[in-house]
Amino acid sequence: MTIEELKNHYDEEVTISGFVDEIRNLKWVQFIVLRDHTSKVQITIEKSEESNKKMVELVNDLTVESTIKVTGKLMESPKVKLNGMEIIPNTIEVTSKNEGELPFNYKDTSTVNIDTRLDYRYIDLRSDKNQAMFQIQSNLVRYMREYLYENGFTEIHTPKLLGAASESGSEVFEVKYFKEKAYLAQSPQFYKQMALASGMGKVFEVAPCFRAENSNTSRHATEFTSFDVEFAYINDFNDVMDLEAEMLKYALEKVNEKYGEKIKELFETELIVPKTPFPKMKLKDIYKELEERYDYKVKDEEKTDLTTEAERLCYKLAKDKFDSEFLFVIDFPADKRAFYHMRDENGTLQGYDLIWRGVEITTGAQREHRYEHIVKSAQEKGLGEDVKFYLEFFKHGCPPHGGFAIGVDRLTMLLLGIPTLKETEFLFRGPNRLTP
Amino acid sequence: MTIEELKNHYDEEVTISGFVDEIRNLKWVQFIVLRDHTSKVQITIEKSEESNKKMVELVNDLTVESTIKVTGKLMESPKVKLNGMEIIPNTIEVTSKNEGELPFNYKDTSTVNIDTRLDYRYIDLRSDKNQAMFQIQSNLVRYMREYLYENGFTEIHTPKLLGAASESGSEVFEVKYFKEKAYLAQSPQFYKQMALASGMGKVFEVAPCFRAENSNTSRHATEFTSFDVEFAYINDFNDVMDLEAEMLKYALEKVNEKYGEKIKELFETELIVPKTPFPKMKLKDIYKELEERYDYKVKDEEKTDLTTEAERLCYKLAKDKFDSEFLFVIDFPADKRAFYHMRDENGTLQGYDLIWRGVEITTGAQREHRYEHIVKSAQEKGLGEDVKFYLEFFKHGCPPHGGFAIGVDRLTMLLLGIPTLKETEFLFRGPNRLTP
Repeated sequence: MTIEELKNHYDEEVTISGFVDEIRNLKWVQFIVLRDHTSKVQITIEKSEESNKKMVELVNDLTVESTIKVTGKLMESPKVKLNGMEIIPNTIEVTSKNEGELPFNYKDTSTVNIDTRLDYRYIDLRSDKNQAMFQIQSNLVRYMREYLYENGFTEIHTPKLLGAASESGSEVFEVKYFKEKAYLAQSPQFYKQMALASGMGKVFEVAPCFRAENSNTSRHATEFTSFDVEFAYINDFNDVMDLEAEMLKYALEKVNEKYGEKIKELFETELIVPKTPFPKMKLKDIYKELEERYDYKVKDEEKTDLTTEAERLCYKLAKDKFDSEFLFVIDFPADKRAFYHMRDENGTLQGYDLIWRGVEITTGAQREHRYEHIVKSAQEKGLGEDVKFYLEFFKHGCPPHGGFAIGVDRLTMLLLGIPTLKETEFLFRGPNRLTP
Repeated sequence: MTIEELKNHYDEEVTISGFVDEIRNLKWVQFIVLRDHTSKVQITIEKSEESNKKMVELVNDLTVESTIKVTGKLMESPKVKLNGMEIIPNTIEVTSKNEGELPFNYKDTSTVNIDTRLDYRYIDLRSDKNQAMFQIQSNLVRYMREYLYENGFTEIHTPKLLGAASESGSEVFEVKYFKEKAYLAQSPQFYKQMALASGMGKVFEVAPCFRAENSNTSRHATEFTSFDVEFAYINDFNDVMDLEAEMLKYALEKVNEKYGEKIKELFETELIVPKTPFPKMKLKDIYKELEERYDYKVKDEEKTDLTTEAERLCYKLAKDKFDSEFLFVIDFPADKRAFYHMRDENGTLQGYDLIWRGVEITTGAQREHRYEHIVKSAQEKGLGEDVKFYLEFFKHGCPPHGGFAIGVDRLTMLLLGIPTLKETEFLFRGPNRLTP
């Protein structure tokens, strides 16, 4: 039984396990606060009761953060602040012992260095906030998947070990593969497209991606979890944007039902369930409005992409103009984007970025599916042998298709207002961080 | 709209897309069989209709395996074998062209070498069997996850890049990590236990695992998808076996509802939904019964584990003795198992293997969660620096827990009676296979 389930068992004998969150050893009574992954409950031991003698001694020796198993009677006790209940125990068993002082106080990390927290991540994760964060992340992914399952998608598992350094060789990790070299996948892009060339229709994957970028920003990691979607038979890239918006709305609505209150309480952030469709704006119109509305000016040569500051201001723009936290940005210059993004007959890029709360969470696009076009596009970018295997996928028929990718850790960061990926990854990996 | 959804739209104008599965160009009429990931449908073009003239010419030039988009009227036609319907098209648009002859006939691969099939996997996957296989695999994983979500589990994403070569250094891939070395995770074992040490209670992960084993059997791959489960507050390892059995029963039942008929038809295999609890037998009792029942004898020194033949015979034994396809094997010699598997006070291993249809699909166990015990156990196996970070997880309290891992590709293999992992992985990876 979990602590959360106790409320259906008043006046019964219950057995419950967890971590010792707190001990208060008073003159006449001992209180233990017991914690599991669902909630907390008070254990109350009257010292005067003769039958409690051994238990009182046990609690005298007990250390916080040890784990115990308690059997006793569950009482409704309105005076107890913690869930209005307490357990009057018959037996307490210590199932594991905290061997000494914690390396830091995980309940107040305001003065603790992030690296210390990561060094002892198994302690850091014990906080209420971190416990909630990973339950919320798990549910967010669960409901994104659920939306796709309901819409006929198949989940695939593509290889992370590659024979060729795909897209951009410079940022790829090299692996010693018996007598050869292999490379770690930066993204499942080529393989989710392969799935569509093989007729699988609608696919997605949730899996690690690896980037050998030697950069230390709050938004980058050498390994992260990517939620990748790709589907066929689209009319144009509006279909891709629409599906992404509907999926996010569905998942955020479900997460809000379950965790909306908890998010407010623990993270002081409100989850606002978005309305669909999300607004769309052309890149050049954004710069125009940012200047008009907020007097934000940049040089023309910087307007080929969103600057970090422009990205940030998109939050305000989207709210002011559309009452939305989300904004699709379209009409990026075609030559700045990957060769497999489709251009229409006028050369206009059929791709987009999605900005949430001032941060880019997705790049998506219709893909080039026509053999001669994709071959030409690769040649123009000077891509040779490394993408040859990929070009083959389009030789024997491949339907029109598009897709997108969302970083799960980055999405969690924005959802909960956490400043860095170092906290939203279960175990962060960066250029200087490979442990624990 | 997918082809499967057509049945709700008789006598309407429909637009449908897919691959050209077949073309029959007769004197008075042209037939196209159109295929998508859900089903197939016939397109019928009367050559004598004046208004069809351009369409007839288009079909004259059409090649199988190209993709087309068809708009036309959907008719109920009992005489048409294929789903009793046909589309009378107004327009056909070729959305991608099959540029030439396929490298092999994916509809009959009986004489095609498996390596040729893997070289052109994007063609191989187009077969009805392979399409069904990956939809079934996706649903199997979906419902295993669903069972765990319903039971309060949190999905985690642990790092695949490690600073130390975990469990068994010899079979680990080495990665060039900036100026250091990193290693690819063979399993999330240590990290899913870390999650429990951090109080997460019940966790699971579905992710790639990497094994640098230079072996070429039907059951081994250098990369595979592992379904890993770990949960706290167990009484003993029976709780682990019971949860695994219930999860498999739940998922197989759901898969049977959706795909039972298709599995029979395409794979000539029956999905038998198991009854729970699954039977359990001690290793030594199995050898005794195999000898008594089937006259299978092995030398005593081989009886420390199941031989491949004994494993195979367990299928027969489980059926004959328990009317079950599943069999839990317990009481393996403790010294043959990983140092983190728990031994009871008599030294008996608190772990198990699960055999399905004569093949091991899982190793599971209660884990050693007590700091002094796990340190001692690691020392006895001569494990030093490499597991030091792992031992730390148990220093500040960790509840009793256990778990197991299932190979998704191997499970698919057994479910559908496929002879090799090379076919059940989306893209197989082995010592001699890194492409496409």
